[in-house]
Order: sequence, then structure tokens, then C-alpha cells
Amino acid sequence: MASKKVDSEEAIIGAYFAPLAAGFPGAFALEDDCAAIAPAPGHDLVVTTDAVIEGVHFFAGEAPDAIAWKALAVNISDLVAKGATPLAYLMALALPEAPEHAWLAAFAQGLGAAQTAFGCHLAGGDTDRTPGPLSVSITAFGTVPAGGMVRRGTARPGDAVYVSGTIGDALLGLALRREPALAAKWGLEDRARLVLDTAYCRPQPPVAIAPALRASASAAMDISDGLVKDFDRMCRASQCGGRIEAARVPLSEPARAIVESGGRQLADLLTGGEDYQVLAAIAPERAADFERMAAASGNCVMRIGQIAEVAAGVEVVDGSGRAMSLARTGWDHFRNTARDKRG
Amino acid sequence: MASKKVDSEEAIIGAYFAPLAAGFPGAFALEDDCAAIAPAPGHDLVVTTDAVIEGVHFFAGEAPDAIAWKALAVNISDLVAKGATPLAYLMALALPEAPEHAWLAAFAQGLGAAQTAFGCHLAGGDTDRTPGPLSVSITAFGTVPAGGMVRRGTARPGDAVYVSGTIGDALLGLALRREPALAAKWGLEDRARLVLDTAYCRPQPPVAIAPALRASASAAMDISDGLVKDFDRMCRASQCGGRIEAARVPLSEPARAIVESGGRQLADLLTGGEDYQVLAAIAPERAADFERMAAASGNCVMRIGQIAEVAAGVEVVDGSGRAMSLARTGWDHFRNTARDKRG
Repeated sequence: MASKKVDSEEAIIGAYFAPLAAGFPGAFALEDDCAAIAPAPGHDLVVTTDAVIEGVHFFAGEAPDAIAWKALAVNISDLVAKGATPLAYLMALALPEAPEHAWLAAFAQGLGAAQTAFGCHLAGGDTDRTPGPLSVSITAFGTVPAGGMVRRGTARPGDAVYVSGTIGDALLGLALRREPALAAKWGLEDRARLVLDTAYCRPQPPVAIAPALRASASAAMDISDGLVKDFDRMCRASQCGGRIEAARVPLSEPARAIVESGGRQLADLLTGGEDYQVLAAIAPERAADFERMAAASGNCVMRIGQIAEVAAGVEVVDGSGRAMSLARTGWDHFRNTARDKRG
Repeated sequence: MASKKVDSEEAIIGAYFAPLAAGFPGAFALEDDCAAIAPAPGHDLVVTTDAVIEGVHFFAGEAPDAIAWKALAVNISDLVAKGATPLAYLMALALPEAPEHAWLAAFAQGLGAAQTAFGCHLAGGDTDRTPGPLSVSITAFGTVPAGGMVRRGTARPGDAVYVSGTIGDALLGLALRREPALAAKWGLEDRARLVLDTAYCRPQPPVAIAPALRASASAAMDISDGLVKDFDRMCRASQCGGRIEAARVPLSEPARAIVESGGRQLADLLTGGEDYQVLAAIAPERAADFERMAAASGNCVMRIGQIAEVAAGVEVVDGSGRAMSLARTGWDHFRNTARDKRG
């Protein structure tokens, strides 16, 4: 009987990862040391790298297909917010022990589902053993027409501020992972619990929105470390101020119910992180076009605030126009306390 | 007095990594979420990713500048062997604790020295905390004329087999790290010890050889997991056999002295790994040009064998033409025993 453990790097690549590279000729079926990527003439490559680590970005024992999905999704989120169309990715996998076939099969299945959803292919990678926790470092490649990458620091006073999707679901999904009893306390039905858990463990960046951003956005970035913190970053990078109207921030049905019943503060949702939605600054004269193109791509966008002169500062106001007091603005790996640590 | 610890990801990037991106406009001074890379018209990007992990690829407590150098060098090695000219890289850094300024300064200094030596720039990255060991995942980008990446699996029977540099020094450097008393046993002077240690902890891939490979190589790859193992991979990928004449394999002076005095078997050096030199198959009519171009680039190359028909198999012969018996062919993260583990 064959061993359940996989005993060589080449066996892992051949059996589980080569099929994910089949659609990308420059991957050379993962049989070479490098991949070749040729963007179409007149296009730039947009590149980004992000790692997910067990005990930091996902819980020990997380389903392998969810780990794979999240590892790719957090990178695609960055590309999409820059207006790029996903093309390919490389993956450096560090495994704490020789993996079992069943684990690898599920991991590869999750990666396959994610790359199909996001429209890209595995182009290469590296597989190592590590004495530490499982980690998956992905580098993702997308394309934009030459010079067309949407920047973070180019918002202008007067621009409308938009977000895609809904905000705060991943934070609530994470809270439920830590304290499952909250589901009953918050009166959540199974479906609502699943919506929040999925937002946490299988984020869905709005891939199809990239052309709308390229056509209309003054500036954009993805929301990964908390809406308020990332908005602050956009304003600082743009040497602007800005205002978010908290009551306009789109919430999912379960999130709205939890906030309305006092289960969690709205401020927590605005600073929670891992939303993997797009934050965009849109000139007023482009706003109608942007909303139309975003809707046509299947993505709802919501105007939640405005870019202002730098002297106005950055603020979040409640329904009556008063500045909200926030205990923190978002996530920082080096500043947050152990209590905040995920996993 | 300022803390010795660094307390935010943005502070790390701004103080230590942004200066390394100054020469690459598409890095946007590391102030955006992605980098933009536009290969020159008529060129492809060649991309690769490799991670180095504390306790696996380097020892705990290794000098931070050496860790940084090695992390970049192992990636540049892959690019160079494909005939690519290095351009830029992304780095995903996982730190076990909030780093001290002195550590980061030394790490950035090592990275700066390496990128200067290899002719590339930092273009972006990701910095995380990890409950595990320090790891550095780099994705490196190089360029080749369109379609010009030198492949691994295109060697042809009759090709001459070449290596750059010397083989086995890193293995000896690693042995000295594990057992410093070997230096006296082997009668090594300080300078010899330094040559071997440097080969282990600051590998020097032959960057300038890339054009010679593009002009003349049927096939090439870097030697990272042991000469014999990597030669076997090239032959298998090319559906060929092949032969290495062990006595022709170039050794450094200290390595030759150690082998001649019986301190270590030649077979160990041929299967040790981490050489980060180039293995190339060259058609006989191209051999003189290849040797000339390689020498003009400042790199010695040595003909060590020949590609054969697949029926001839893959073998390593000693000075009298007898097949050598090898306990193993090289390094595999999943097959090697704990005894082989580095660090």
C-alpha cells in the first residue's frame, strides 16, 4: 500500500501543482527553474507579494482548500485595486512536515478554484520544509495598459470616496472562529454564520471591477488592514484630508443586525481589517460612469465619503455629523498586542 | 531615548527598504501596494521565487547581512542560469519578533550589497510577524530577448557539459559551521576557511555569464541541490543520458587539499548542494565561443562531461573511467533525514 505521506518535492509538484499550470505556456509545466512572462505589447505587468502564515493569517488546522484560496485572494485583491487584470502567480510553500496526499489534494483543489475564480494560472514556485508554521507566499502578476496602474497617492480634494462590497464581515467571521458561542448570542442563523465565516476564510476580491477603476479612479487601494487605516493611508499618500460618513458604509445583512442589536460596535467593523474590497477616489464628474461600469461588472459600489484639503484632516463622522472616537484605526503586525493576534 | 525595537511595518519600510528601491521607478518608492514592471519591447520577463528559512537554509543567529545576501543570491542564481539579466525583486519577510534597528540596518546593508553586485533593485514586498523562524521569500525578475529563456530540458546528445566556478565549497563551509574543529583537522589557514564559509553563506552566482548562455547553451540550470542530482534532472528533462568525469570537476584550492588529504570524499562534494553555479549543455561547435564569452565576462567555465543518448543512462566516472558509487545524488527537503538538516 502506498504511503499517505509525500516524500519528494518533485512528486508534490508533478501530482498536485503542475495541473494548475497547464493553462500558462510560460510555466513550462513547472519543469524548469523559472517561468517566462510576456505582457501583451503596450502593457505593463503589475506585481505584488503577500504571505499567509498559520497562526497569524489563518488558524491552525484550517481547511487546506481555504488556506490556498486565501493565499491567492489576498494577492489578487492588491492587483485588482490597482486596475490590473490577473494573469499568473508564483507560490513559495513552506510545509512543517511531509504533507499527506489528502492534504495536498485539498490544498490544490482550493488553489484551482481560486485561480479559476480570479482568472489566473500558477506559473512556478518553491516548496520547502520548515521547522515553523505552514506559510504560503504568493507573488501575483496582472496587466494594465502601459502606465495605467491606478496609484494610491493620487486622490484629489473633491473626489468622492467609494468602497466595493460590504465592510466588517471578515472581522465578525474571525470573532465567531474565536468564540463560536457568539453565534447564539447574536442570534445568527446558519446561513448568516456561513456568510461571515466565508468572508473571513475565503475573501472574494472584486476582480471584474478593474476596468472601471482604470477608466475612472483618481486613486485606489485594497482594504486589508481596516477601512479607516487604509483610508488614512490613501489620504496621507495623496497629501489630502478626507471624511468617511460611517452611516453610509455598506454592511451585509448579518453585520447590520449584529451592530443594531449592540453585539458589536460599528467602529469595530470600520477598523477590523481583511475586507479585501476596493477603496477608490473618483472625481465627481466620473462618479456616474464609475457606478455604471462597476454595476455592469457585477460589483456594487457605495459612495461613503469625500477627499478634502489636507488641512481638513482625516475623520470618520457618525449619522449626525459628529466625529467618531476610534480606539484604533486598523491592523499593524508590529504594533498590535498579543490579544489581537489571529489564530 | 528612542526604542531599539521597530514598532510599525511602515517605519521598517520607510527607513530600511525604501532606499533599496530608489533606482527602480516602478517601485513607486514602496509607497503603493504593487509595483509596475515594463520589460523593454521585444523582451520577456523571467521570474522565479525561492525562500530561505532560519534553521533550514541558514543557521539561527546568522549575520543579518549574510541572510539577506543569500536570500537574493539563490534567486539570482536561477535567473542567471536561464540567460536572464537581473532587473528587480520583491521580498516577503516574516520576522519572529519586532526587529531591532541594528538588525534591520545590517539586513538592509546586506541586501543593498547583493542587489548592487547582481544589478537589480527592490521593487516591493510584504513584512509580517510570524510565530515561527525568520524567513525571507524573494521573487526575482530578469529579462531576456523574447523567447530567449534558456531551458533545462533542451540538451542534446553530443553536447558538452560545462560548469561555472568551483563545486563543493558550500558543502565544506557548511561542515565547518557544524563542526569548527574540522578547520584544524583539515589544516586550513584562515583564508581557506573564509573562502569555504563565504561560499556557504554568501554565494556568488555568475551574473555576467548570462549573455554567453543565451548565445551558446542548448540547455542550462543552476546547481543548487548537488551537481549530480541537478545533472540528472537536466538529462531526464532532456530525455537524454549523460556522463560526468569527476576528475574534471573544478575544485577550489582548499577543497582540493581537503579531498587529497582524505578529509572528505570527492563524491560528497559532487552531491552536496548550494553551489549556485551554472550547469550548461553546449553543442560542440559552440564550445569555443562559449568558453571565450564566459572568460570575457570574468567567469571560468570547465567542460566536465557530455550529454549522451538516453539508453546510455546518467553516470559519474572516476579518473580511470569507472562508475563512481554515490550514497545519494543531492538534496531533497522531503526525502533527506533529520541528520542532513541544515542549521
